[in-house]
Amino acid sequence: MNPVTFDIIHVDTRTQARAGILHTPHGDVATPVFMPVGTQATVKTVSPAELEEVGASIILSNTYHLFLRPGPEVVAAVGGLHHFMGWSHPILTDSGGFQVFSLGHLRRLDEDGAIFKSHIDGQLHRFTPERAVEIQEKLGADLIMAFDECAPPQADFSYARTAMERTHRWAERCRASHSRSDQALFGIVQGGVYEDLRRLSARTLTSMDFPGYGIGGLAVGEPKELTWAMLEVVNDNLPPNKPRYLMGVGAPEDLLDGVARGVDMFDCVLPTRIARNGALFTKAGRLNIRNTSNTLDARPIEEDCRCYTCQHFSRAYLRHLFKAEEILGLRLMSIHNLYFLLDLMQRARQAIIQGSFTAFRTEFGAGYRASDPVVQAQNKARWLARIRGGPKHLNMQ
Amino acid sequence: MNPVTFDIIHVDTRTQARAGILHTPHGDVATPVFMPVGTQATVKTVSPAELEEVGASIILSNTYHLFLRPGPEVVAAVGGLHHFMGWSHPILTDSGGFQVFSLGHLRRLDEDGAIFKSHIDGQLHRFTPERAVEIQEKLGADLIMAFDECAPPQADFSYARTAMERTHRWAERCRASHSRSDQALFGIVQGGVYEDLRRLSARTLTSMDFPGYGIGGLAVGEPKELTWAMLEVVNDNLPPNKPRYLMGVGAPEDLLDGVARGVDMFDCVLPTRIARNGALFTKAGRLNIRNTSNTLDARPIEEDCRCYTCQHFSRAYLRHLFKAEEILGLRLMSIHNLYFLLDLMQRARQAIIQGSFTAFRTEFGAGYRASDPVVQAQNKARWLARIRGGPKHLNMQ
Repeated sequence: MNPVTFDIIHVDTRTQARAGILHTPHGDVATPVFMPVGTQATVKTVSPAELEEVGASIILSNTYHLFLRPGPEVVAAVGGLHHFMGWSHPILTDSGGFQVFSLGHLRRLDEDGAIFKSHIDGQLHRFTPERAVEIQEKLGADLIMAFDECAPPQADFSYARTAMERTHRWAERCRASHSRSDQALFGIVQGGVYEDLRRLSARTLTSMDFPGYGIGGLAVGEPKELTWAMLEVVNDNLPPNKPRYLMGVGAPEDLLDGVARGVDMFDCVLPTRIARNGALFTKAGRLNIRNTSNTLDARPIEEDCRCYTCQHFSRAYLRHLFKAEEILGLRLMSIHNLYFLLDLMQRARQAIIQGSFTAFRTEFGAGYRASDPVVQAQNKARWLARIRGGPKHLNMQ
Repeated sequence: MNPVTFDIIHVDTRTQARAGILHTPHGDVATPVFMPVGTQATVKTVSPAELEEVGASIILSNTYHLFLRPGPEVVAAVGGLHHFMGWSHPILTDSGGFQVFSLGHLRRLDEDGAIFKSHIDGQLHRFTPERAVEIQEKLGADLIMAFDECAPPQADFSYARTAMERTHRWAERCRASHSRSDQALFGIVQGGVYEDLRRLSARTLTSMDFPGYGIGGLAVGEPKELTWAMLEVVNDNLPPNKPRYLMGVGAPEDLLDGVARGVDMFDCVLPTRIARNGALFTKAGRLNIRNTSNTLDARPIEEDCRCYTCQHFSRAYLRHLFKAEEILGLRLMSIHNLYFLLDLMQRARQAIIQGSFTAFRTEFGAGYRASDPVVQAQNKARWLARIRGGPKHLNMQ
């Protein structure tokens, strides 16, 4: 019996959007869902109680960061990640793959895994597929991810293929070493910006029959048009009845574009990170709280927003807190941005169920316009031409 | 009709401790009370909802800081300080006197008031008694304070007397210029560490018939024994039926020592400031969360504490947040320290009403022992001998 199962309760007729329920050992998650990111076992600036208040039903935490600090042994000794961070609902941990590959010159990889230097103290560590699974078992999330190699967006075909093939072998090794019966292990689709690779990766992982699939290596710098083209190929080749998780995507317009292409799960640091820089989501687009126009503005960020921040505080107060470098301001703005995305996803789900998703998406899009189709096509062509040769420094294998 | 009135409901038989109720335009405050400090219109790291949760019934904010940023006009435009910061309960603003005099060489004073340089941008500003009242009227707190001159603890008799006399004249000017009928203006007793001056100051201000009295210039560096000796002289000479506010005192043991001498109100940044350095109040004394002994400690800060932090999180988690420099840690620790002090005051009040205050104080004192009486007497004598001549740099008049 799989500890995590997925029910699709409605599929949109005009797009690939679907509404579902993900059943986990720590409760059900209504999909499509956005997962706030708690990198170091805390979603920055907000408490678990506030996460519940903004409507979060599942959060993500980072294996790489928790491995370095406080260490999986500490988390396990205190009763596992849920208990450690006071979050009794579902948790997903990534495998650390993306963070390790983001370290650039601080890491070295081979068939067995990756050696890397800690960004904190420079100490050397080794991650292998087996080790990534072992750490995630100690952390104890409901959903864990296979250790993968995330090729950079400008990787040439050969590099992307090699990384993808290794990702497949590592996925097998992760599955073989995974033993906790109360966790589901997801495979991760790779393949860069190459349709053939993306198709092959989706099919290969499907044949391994994971309970769910991460889609990695997208939205990492390539033009948006390529992201969506790759996503379409992948989702056409993944089993329709399994959850699909587009990793690292969190801009409002991107969430709806992903949902329309059949994605069920998303995560991103964007809402909390930009909040700490004073940028706030509104239906009319982003608002910068630092602007002088907010100095005397007694209105909330958004008039009809039901988040704690908008229910109690003015733009003038938030601007004051930001200018005075008061920590409360970072939290109040993070709460608003999280609420905005989680509310957006809940309303998108409702629209899917009611058969009005396309209208909902069009209406929402007014504040977040997609770029011109002609410009999109040019961007895509220019990018593909540029990487055809493949930059020299990427030929590592 | 005075907007703020005070009812004493019980006086302890063995000490001067008393339990009362302060009635204000924004609600009643049970005394003795500790007021958390919201320097810049926010009690650092915590929200108004959390202030209510930890049991705060009145908070303090700083005229000097709000004058500089965001400015009284901004606060007034957004509906006054209560509305601006989302706190619907009573607020007290200090007059800015203490902050201005703390600026040292950045300020210059004369009979009319003080000129000072902003600590933010170096701009020159002028505070007078009238201006301090005007700003506080714009901010709109329930309780406001007269503009006073706070002499340094090592001031000689002559300096302390001059400062005290000026404080009395300024108190009169504040009263004459104060016009808001929904605010109560408190006078401030000064007089350094000199019994004669303290007695004179208390009597002079009593004759001006303020609705309440701040006791300033104590606990600013002088030995504890002098603080309490001065406090006793002052309280013997203030009207028994008016609230007494010992400014800037907030260590647990000091609160009980102050209550025992008839103080009704306290404020201090201590609980939130030390929390941000990882120091936590417990009944057994202070706990430093950074200690390695907390790494694997699954216990809360205090087993029987009912604050949000202790109900949900372990020492191990708090230590992790502190080491990882996560903002949530600063908040969770601030919440505990505030709860600890507010709970202490509520229990002290209950003990006063039940006639068990002395027993309560003795029992609590186990974790916070007072120093040896002989050492105390020596400290006091040494300090008084040192300042008899008066340090040269203080002879400013």
